[in-house]
Amino acid sequence: MCRWAAYRGEPIYLEELVTSPAHSLIEQSHCATRAKTATNADGFGIAWYGDRPEPGRFRDVLPAWSDCNLKSLARQIKSPLFLAHVRAATHGSTRRDNCHPFVNGTWSFMHNGQIDHFDRLRRSMESMLDDEHFNARAGSTDSELLFLLALQFGLRERPIAAMAEAIGFVEQISRHLTGTARVRFTAAFTDGQTLYGVRYATDEHAPTLYAAPMGGKGGYCLVSEPLNDETDWVEIPAGSAVILNANGLDAAGFDPAWEPERETAELREPAMAH
Amino acid sequence: MCRWAAYRGEPIYLEELVTSPAHSLIEQSHCATRAKTATNADGFGIAWYGDRPEPGRFRDVLPAWSDCNLKSLARQIKSPLFLAHVRAATHGSTRRDNCHPFVNGTWSFMHNGQIDHFDRLRRSMESMLDDEHFNARAGSTDSELLFLLALQFGLRERPIAAMAEAIGFVEQISRHLTGTARVRFTAAFTDGQTLYGVRYATDEHAPTLYAAPMGGKGGYCLVSEPLNDETDWVEIPAGSAVILNANGLDAAGFDPAWEPERETAELREPAMAH
Amino acid sequence: MCRWAAYRGEPIYLEELVTSPAHSLIEQSHCATRAKTATNADGFGIAWYGDRPEPGRFRDVLPAWSDCNLKSLARQIKSPLFLAHVRAATHGSTRRDNCHPFVNGTWSFMHNGQIDHFDRLRRSMESMLDDEHFNARAGSTDSELLFLLALQFGLRERPIAAMAEAIGFVEQISRHLTGTARVRFTAAFTDGQTLYGVRYATDEHAPTLYAAPMGGKGGYCLVSEPLNDETDWVEIPAGSAVILNANGLDAAGFDPAWEPERETAELREPAMAH
Amino acid sequence: MCRWAAYRGEPIYLEELVTSPAHSLIEQSHCATRAKTATNADGFGIAWYGDRPEPGRFRDVLPAWSDCNLKSLARQIKSPLFLAHVRAATHGSTRRDNCHPFVNGTWSFMHNGQIDHFDRLRRSMESMLDDEHFNARAGSTDSELLFLLALQFGLRERPIAAMAEAIGFVEQISRHLTGTARVRFTAAFTDGQTLYGVRYATDEHAPTLYAAPMGGKGGYCLVSEPLNDETDWVEIPAGSAVILNANGLDAAGFDPAWEPERETAELREPAMAH
Repeated sequence: MCRWAAYRGEPIYLEELVTSPAHSLIEQSHCATRAKTATNADGFGIAWYGDRPEPGRFRDVLPAWSDCNLKSLARQIKSPLFLAHVRAATHGSTRRDNCHPFVNGTWSFMHNGQIDHFDRLRRSMESMLDDEHFNARAGSTDSELLFLLALQFGLRERPIAAMAEAIGFVEQISRHLTGTARVRFTAAFTDGQTLYGVRYATDEHAPTLYAAPMGGKGGYCLVSEPLNDETDWVEIPAGSAVILNANGLDAAGFDPAWEPERETAELREPAMAH
Repeated sequence: MCRWAAYRGEPIYLEELVTSPAHSLIEQSHCATRAKTATNADGFGIAWYGDRPEPGRFRDVLPAWSDCNLKSLARQIKSPLFLAHVRAATHGSTRRDNCHPFVNGTWSFMHNGQIDHFDRLRRSMESMLDDEHFNARAGSTDSELLFLLALQFGLRERPIAAMAEAIGFVEQISRHLTGTARVRFTAAFTDGQTLYGVRYATDEHAPTLYAAPMGGKGGYCLVSEPLNDETDWVEIPAGSAVILNANGLDAAGFDPAWEPERETAELREPAMAH
Repeated sequence: MCRWAAYRGEPIYLEELVTSPAHSLIEQSHCATRAKTATNADGFGIAWYGDRPEPGRFRDVLPAWSDCNLKSLARQIKSPLFLAHVRAATHGSTRRDNCHPFVNGTWSFMHNGQIDHFDRLRRSMESMLDDEHFNARAGSTDSELLFLLALQFGLRERPIAAMAEAIGFVEQISRHLTGTARVRFTAAFTDGQTLYGVRYATDEHAPTLYAAPMGGKGGYCLVSEPLNDETDWVEIPAGSAVILNANGLDAAGFDPAWEPERETAELREPAMAH
Repeated sequence: MCRWAAYRGEPIYLEELVTSPAHSLIEQSHCATRAKTATNADGFGIAWYGDRPEPGRFRDVLPAWSDCNLKSLARQIKSPLFLAHVRAATHGSTRRDNCHPFVNGTWSFMHNGQIDHFDRLRRSMESMLDDEHFNARAGSTDSELLFLLALQFGLRERPIAAMAEAIGFVEQISRHLTGTARVRFTAAFTDGQTLYGVRYATDEHAPTLYAAPMGGKGGYCLVSEPLNDETDWVEIPAGSAVILNANGLDAAGFDPAWEPERETAELREPAMAH
């Protein structure tokens, strides 16, 4: 399990999420309170949008609490849209390529959760990627592969639906290959304009997700656990997606059960009825 | 606060302390139970003696639990005498030069504890070193400086007495410079033949130290906290030194109050009585 | 291109190849003389055999010349059989998982050379691996994948033939997928008993390979370039394999053209002629 | 010897010095042409000014050519004033604390060159620092200590003069302690407003320094060697200081022989003449 925080709104310094709050992300790197593991010391990463369509990114393998570079960058960089993450490794060794956020073109993605039996699913998941997405794989985590799978399934055009498809596909092949399936998934992803958050689990234990206004003028912050006690953090219910853009915050249901095969089947049904 | 384990006896694989026990040193790097901090993730190190009089050393800055090199080395290397340490930084940044054990010629040293107000004492401590010991300083920790001070004061000839002098000196200058003094010190050090352990604090809270037979034929293990529940670990009382050599385990009092100035004063007293 | 050195014979300190010679491996990490690139600063690694059937391994990403751990380990560890490597990256980022030697069970492998158009061949190469070998892939280099392919093709039973098959297979799919093929390959690999060296290239430019007696009593050293001027280094011709075991040095031709399909076809031909 | 580049002018992306030019700083990290060493692979660093008076800083120990973070940051960050450096270690191990630029409050500093016999001068140099500057020392390089010495001698109020004093002092104590003196020093430093460059050596071999307009509107770039062949790079003569501010480029002589003692002596002379 990992901890993360994301922001969209008027430009603010990254430190307002990463280092300054009482229960900042760096604080959570050694004492998270609502995670399965209190210590999230297997690296960290930030992705932020500036003048270019692609985000800048900085990732490293030291615990976030002891990295001077992270502190200096968080203090210096202002951004209207950024993701920040501290990692507790489940799948994949401690190395930069395995640290979130993952970036592909203008898109970035970070995740808290895990795919059960990933070792037995990995190969089939990779086989769904076309050459371009396959070659874009740099690390060995389940998270990066979920992101690539969602990109493959159309994340760029219909973000929430493609992400639901990716998770639904993983659950499906897990049932085929292992007789069971469990995905726990709380993630943030963005194209540099709109920030999406999702909270979902196959079972009853979806990792937590909270939202709160921040930075004024309709700005919002999404976090895996609250950054302080003062703010009014709203818990996002499991099975939800959150969409943050210039119009403020919007919410929607998130249901991986909506599968392309099923849809096709339904579409065909009338034809079959003939 | 840090965690450590030391061994002297028949050659055993380093993994018998570092990775194999239920509560191994790597286990303690993320869930120490008798330390002020449960997480000891600011690097680690090992020093072991083989065919040469000088020890080999391997130190790195990742948490011990995620370092593949450490696991492989601990599994491959056998030694009759070695020190192993996982660090929770108090003074000094996370970098290799600040990881224990510290090595000087045939001597190696590691430490759990701290010197209060070290920032105000450091310069006076360094000023006691001759050029050779001054130039041997590679990092910025209080621990390394204590080791160099003890070397300066004669560690090579009278190990326990010189270490007591070094600590007594630090307490003394601390009282002069800050009006108070507190050193907490549980350490292991060796010349490659005899293994010394010390447990001491200026106040009532000396960091814990335990000993138990290990490896057969008079071998012993010293640890900052027990490696398992089965073994009969003996707690070494505060204010003690332990000496492990071919004759087995010996114990002695450890009292930094024995100061060279005082001794000189006492020697002079009769003269003054004239 | 990379630089490497391997040894089999009476136990010697690793430093006799890694740090001591005038043109030691560490020296070659910044001034190799017979390589395409003089600088080999993208990490390094050693694998050595001791009391266990599996080798110990130590790899890291700093330039070999500045790593204190490497110097200390090379000075302390004695071994009758070891591989040592300094890397200049062609495929795969600078991270430990991409540093040679690669280890699988009791086998270890290191390589200097490259596969042209690897990005277009990688997927088909991976598809030949069974689940066990596929899951054993930790990095992203062409070298590690060649090793896994050779293991898949029977390296454990017939080392030279399986390696030839692996290279022949890569050349074959390269011709299919890119219309051309070029593999340059100078490698050392061992099961902990016998040390194998191979020098081969699809074209006329096989990376260099030299051998010389070392360490007395039939010991030998294999290197990508000589470690000094005094020793009588024998250049191993392209298209050769070298086998070093208790009986000394043996040599054989190395021809990837020997393919299983072809052999089967040839064997069947007479039968078909009936 | 190291390589560096500094910029002051309209905000530009850091990549315009660090990665984009034909002979960019990253290119120079493996093939510098006018340095004593072609390889500058012992770490790198950048310091840049944004909205705050203090600079942001990013330093790491990998060769600049293989660090993905550096590439991403250089591509994303725009600044009107920044320093960038690639290191070839002379004094001090490869670690972040020893990488340039060094930062103290709003000031930053980077250096190419070295102090001969630094090991014998270091202690006397450190003894000149007051407690605040002494405690600010994080690494072990001659460069950082020169910077702290200049700060101690008044860099904040009279930058060029204090730097000359610092170098003059080092030459002086070197003559006292070793009977000879040689400082080679090409450096850039700034308070976030004005950019200073200095080229100096005790002997005839001052490391090179070049300047050229860049970024339009009176912007300038200072470099240890030209970044490309097209631009008209002006070589700054040895014994010079360059001052870049809103008024453009100004130059002055740089003479460490101007010593406070001497000045005092001169000031006293008339008095003594009475």
